[in-house]
Amino acid sequence: MITKPTLLLDKKKCKENINTMFSKAKKHHLEFRPHFKTHQSLEIGSWFKEIGVTKITVSSVSMAEYFSTQWNDITIAFPTNILEIKSINALAKKITINLCIENEESISFLSTHLKYKATILLKMDVGYHRTGINPDNTNLINTILDITEANPLLNFIGFLGHAGHTYKCRTHKAIKEEHSKSLTIMAKLKDQYASRYPNLIISLGDTPSCSVANDFSGVDEIRPGNFVFYDLTQNFIGSNSIAQIAVALACPIVAIHKERSEVIVYGGGVHFSKDRIETEEGLVFGRVVEKGSNSWGDLIPNTYVKSLSQEHGTIVVPKEDLDNYKIGNYLMVLPVHSCMAGNTMKSYTTFEGEIISRL
Amino acid sequence: MITKPTLLLDKKKCKENINTMFSKAKKHHLEFRPHFKTHQSLEIGSWFKEIGVTKITVSSVSMAEYFSTQWNDITIAFPTNILEIKSINALAKKITINLCIENEESISFLSTHLKYKATILLKMDVGYHRTGINPDNTNLINTILDITEANPLLNFIGFLGHAGHTYKCRTHKAIKEEHSKSLTIMAKLKDQYASRYPNLIISLGDTPSCSVANDFSGVDEIRPGNFVFYDLTQNFIGSNSIAQIAVALACPIVAIHKERSEVIVYGGGVHFSKDRIETEEGLVFGRVVEKGSNSWGDLIPNTYVKSLSQEHGTIVVPKEDLDNYKIGNYLMVLPVHSCMAGNTMKSYTTFEGEIISRL
Repeated sequence: MITKPTLLLDKKKCKENINTMFSKAKKHHLEFRPHFKTHQSLEIGSWFKEIGVTKITVSSVSMAEYFSTQWNDITIAFPTNILEIKSINALAKKITINLCIENEESISFLSTHLKYKATILLKMDVGYHRTGINPDNTNLINTILDITEANPLLNFIGFLGHAGHTYKCRTHKAIKEEHSKSLTIMAKLKDQYASRYPNLIISLGDTPSCSVANDFSGVDEIRPGNFVFYDLTQNFIGSNSIAQIAVALACPIVAIHKERSEVIVYGGGVHFSKDRIETEEGLVFGRVVEKGSNSWGDLIPNTYVKSLSQEHGTIVVPKEDLDNYKIGNYLMVLPVHSCMAGNTMKSYTTFEGEIISRL
Repeated sequence: MITKPTLLLDKKKCKENINTMFSKAKKHHLEFRPHFKTHQSLEIGSWFKEIGVTKITVSSVSMAEYFSTQWNDITIAFPTNILEIKSINALAKKITINLCIENEESISFLSTHLKYKATILLKMDVGYHRTGINPDNTNLINTILDITEANPLLNFIGFLGHAGHTYKCRTHKAIKEEHSKSLTIMAKLKDQYASRYPNLIISLGDTPSCSVANDFSGVDEIRPGNFVFYDLTQNFIGSNSIAQIAVALACPIVAIHKERSEVIVYGGGVHFSKDRIETEEGLVFGRVVEKGSNSWGDLIPNTYVKSLSQEHGTIVVPKEDLDNYKIGNYLMVLPVHSCMAGNTMKSYTTFEGEIISRL
């Protein structure tokens, strides 16, 4: 029974999302190394295991530690934080750990401080301009490769990219164009280094490209993460339908202000986080869906979270619908960013009544 | 030793903030009922106890439960969520619990479901237009008061307001003007109901007004919360100096992109939350301060967090300062919203090496 903000998980939708992406990877002969930063749950991870996934991606050493109890091949898709060398060594001793490098300082440090074998991936900037080596910076690439090669504990396996700039796209065409640029950059690198490293791999990973694109020429591995739940942001980008979104936040109704056509729920920034999308209606922090007992239904038109305080959510409701909302009832809201809502809520409740824990 | 994002607490600054607000309340003969939603920590709560505070405010039933082990007079400054009646009854049995009411449905429900005594405050809209009764809606006020009076378990004690719209102010003058409007609204209500309730209290509470205003005529109680830490938002509003901010997030440096004059830290939306302020420089999600071993120093000019992903923070650094930042070092960032950063980080680390837990 819902008494306070509860992050509901539709297990069926979630498993369908997993199966769809798994099948797509298989069809394109890609290694499927899903990013677990979205769900951060051993139990949800086990649903990937059931269908044959054996390798995963995370975005922090802490996440790698958490998943290392059940997974033995983990890529940390984040610039190596050398301050965590002690934990990195403990992981390297225990499992196959794959580290991302994008500067000379980190690889030099690893070369002198790593005590066990680790795999090295070069993080390349495919156009997002957040992290990664400029693909034209052959000097830096070669310097890192030379340091790597000189140490038998370090094993370079390939180039990794994340086209995070696809999050700024709003059409399939635009996503495919950005993805295509990533393919070109990566193909050039593969070509450049193929003689030195005949087995090098190319790893790409954003959910928009993995959801929408159909050309993965030259790619060996994909690492999407958000697709496990999807959310309103991905829907806004064009990655998924509303029906594919697998999490919703149930929020008790605590006040109704008919004069402003607003419903106030217990469900604020500490539940949703503060991600927003800029739409024609203004800023949107969530959208209300029809309630159900086995899942939720369609979006209720023009009914959305317009602002969030710490514990309050303010929901715009069309005047003619106001009578559908009652104090002491609750409503269901699709989140703007499911990774962040999962992080603040810390567990998922299924319609079967299970409570699924996470890091 | 800092190895990953760590929320640092300067105990001295924090205790000074507590003392300053405590003294101000005393000077103005106000009951000081601090809001504990910002720190949410029994230990930090004990610093209030040491100086004589006995009554507190929280914003959820869960927080009231957490603090009820050490505090026996708690106001839940949030519209009563009747779905949590079981927990409310447990609290009412154990301590003095003060509930906010703003609609007939909630008070009717309490009247039939509450098993122990509880205090009732009417939540009034003093201009924020998020929650609260329109002060001109005498019918609704009287209806609620009649239901309250008819049940001996319910004890009406006064009117509560929260001028959250002061967060949109940018000058002391503007804050004082909004605060003055709250005083007028509350004075009128007090006057209107003084003969029926000679002991009724007026409770106000936002940090900007409590920090800046010097006129509290007619007010009996204040409930500020954020002042315990303050943050960049409050500084932007004008509530506090930068030197008063008592929390900073230490973030490891994992990448440096000289060509873009950017430093990438391990420290993202899951650490800061995603609050931002809109400044002349663009969106700001945090500002970098000089590092120190007993505290931090001044703001480093033109050095700020320009964007946050889940785990990454992108920091703008002036070109001439870039050499001050090294991979494997860390920097310190003042948060935009300390309540939210506390909520995501879940503990505070002092310069004395203590780790202070929280809800």
